[in-house]
Amino acid sequence: MSEPFTPIHEVGEFGLIERLQTIVGDLADPDLIMGIGDDAAVYRLPDEETVHVITTDALIEGVHFDRLMTPMEHLGYKAIAVNVSDVVAMNAEPRYATITVGIPARLSVEMMEAFYRGVRRACEKYRMVLVGGDTTAAHMLCISVTVVGEARMDEVLFRRGARPGDLLCVSGDLGGAYAGLKILLEQRQALKEKGPDYQPDLEPFRYVIQRQLLPEARLDVIRDWRARGVRPRALIDVSDGLASEVHHLCRHSDCGAIVYASTIPVALETREVADRFAEDVDTYALFGGEDYELLFALPPEQLELLDPTSFSVIGEFLPADQGVQVQTPEGAIIPLEPAGYQHFRADNGTENEPPST
Amino acid sequence: MSEPFTPIHEVGEFGLIERLQTIVGDLADPDLIMGIGDDAAVYRLPDEETVHVITTDALIEGVHFDRLMTPMEHLGYKAIAVNVSDVVAMNAEPRYATITVGIPARLSVEMMEAFYRGVRRACEKYRMVLVGGDTTAAHMLCISVTVVGEARMDEVLFRRGARPGDLLCVSGDLGGAYAGLKILLEQRQALKEKGPDYQPDLEPFRYVIQRQLLPEARLDVIRDWRARGVRPRALIDVSDGLASEVHHLCRHSDCGAIVYASTIPVALETREVADRFAEDVDTYALFGGEDYELLFALPPEQLELLDPTSFSVIGEFLPADQGVQVQTPEGAIIPLEPAGYQHFRADNGTENEPPST
Repeated sequence: MSEPFTPIHEVGEFGLIERLQTIVGDLADPDLIMGIGDDAAVYRLPDEETVHVITTDALIEGVHFDRLMTPMEHLGYKAIAVNVSDVVAMNAEPRYATITVGIPARLSVEMMEAFYRGVRRACEKYRMVLVGGDTTAAHMLCISVTVVGEARMDEVLFRRGARPGDLLCVSGDLGGAYAGLKILLEQRQALKEKGPDYQPDLEPFRYVIQRQLLPEARLDVIRDWRARGVRPRALIDVSDGLASEVHHLCRHSDCGAIVYASTIPVALETREVADRFAEDVDTYALFGGEDYELLFALPPEQLELLDPTSFSVIGEFLPADQGVQVQTPEGAIIPLEPAGYQHFRADNGTENEPPST
Repeated sequence: MSEPFTPIHEVGEFGLIERLQTIVGDLADPDLIMGIGDDAAVYRLPDEETVHVITTDALIEGVHFDRLMTPMEHLGYKAIAVNVSDVVAMNAEPRYATITVGIPARLSVEMMEAFYRGVRRACEKYRMVLVGGDTTAAHMLCISVTVVGEARMDEVLFRRGARPGDLLCVSGDLGGAYAGLKILLEQRQALKEKGPDYQPDLEPFRYVIQRQLLPEARLDVIRDWRARGVRPRALIDVSDGLASEVHHLCRHSDCGAIVYASTIPVALETREVADRFAEDVDTYALFGGEDYELLFALPPEQLELLDPTSFSVIGEFLPADQGVQVQTPEGAIIPLEPAGYQHFRADNGTENEPPST
């Protein structure tokens, strides 16, 4: 007569979310335009021309970050930035943030002050205000941030809306945050093996480490769009990795897509890190998460409106029945799995070979 | 040359918050009416007649709750209700909630479903919608909720605004949640000592246990005020204990106050629990937290508008120079310390004697 006990790893994170969503998903509100299911929720305000968007994200010690590798000020900055990125991914401006922090006893007042200096710096950068919070004791450092953003009703962009023929575009470069993580993990291991006197030389990896520890929300990109009259048809931020986000856009837009791997923008330093580990930089770019760049569907006629240095065309939307594909640098066209290194590598043997350095 | 390390317990929770607030406190926004420093933040919407309020609160396993004593469905309900209570304490209606949950591996899918059933039940009860969330792995169960509420600009109530001569009033009864906690802790100890076959008889303590595990936000009270044209001058919810909240109202309103201990409403069951532990029920009522009743400053001329069964007059606001006082049931007038049992008991020796049972 004991209750059933299904371990969460058996259904996985997405399986769990799906089951939880059937419990709460049908709650309704007349002003709610988008509930759970996009980068942020969207609700109408009484003036009927403005909407607010709201998003929330947690960062948990030992799961999302390693305190040994993460300066507290960077952590505070990142906690805000990743939430702002979700607001930006709705084409909205961030306005207000709240934060709860569970603080373990081993942290000092000075560390928490550094954390909040990071929070402040992010708020200043994105021109928003921290309006509420809760600090409490905890066993591990756990941070939860909520950000409210604002947009004109006719400006909000969703994951849905892409059409076959639209260009698949991305801002900035990809794979860098993952490369930074690889370096940090390597250095942590070296520190463990060689003792506390070991002096890591991180200078050659400055860019990728910053991509990992101090990501930026691309608020500058959507502001530039507004100034130029650019209006993508669908938008998402790249938090879980390009492949996963392309699938989200396609599923929500009822489209297929093809990604040309050789056109994905990758920084030189990211390439050097992949070489260092004798790994394929395309897998970094396709499956590495946390770059927080913007991935969007652009009607081809808007191409000329954009600053060509600010983005890359990396593919094209197709009819839904074509699925989601990737053309490898070698020219093979294969299905693009939503996540996983392993899948991609298994499907395309040549990619497993270490690049020559 | 190592960094200074001040342990957080050295400055205390309020000391820490003060230091953190100096770092982020002066961020400004033209539409922000109230930032950090009340039960919720308040910002103006574009129609200029409506405001939104926002509040956030975390519940951490081992700090705010003991999983052994807390059914998951109750926990989900409470996580929403305590945040709604902060919205209600601004005289606003809850509209939207977001939640992040850090889930340890030892929890099952079924437990999380029960948790979300509680979340749903609370959303239905308070007629609001869960619009966003984030679930992630964690070492301990940690929950963070944010609630956005709505009010007409001229209806919002703050902690400030009370005037000398206003009546100090409270809804419902006090001390019950603390009594419930006492019983739950006693039963957990008995279970530990007597083994798993021990059958606790919790039926006589049903009311106080519910006050602890399943508190309600008093949305019904502020709706009743609206229907009757009642408009208190200042408002706060009783989450940290009556004494602490009276101090908040007085400090924000630049007033003093006197509380008549014998007029504080206490349920019979709460009294019985205090008797069981040979403790003074007035200390439960003054310092026990988590009752989530509403404490408000009422202009005397509005007394007749209220339903007399829905609230109690428990004191009066005084000029600031009179400080915050309490008249004990024995008639002595002594300073009311913002928190702490110990203070109160030390100041008034007779209260230390166990009541006769």
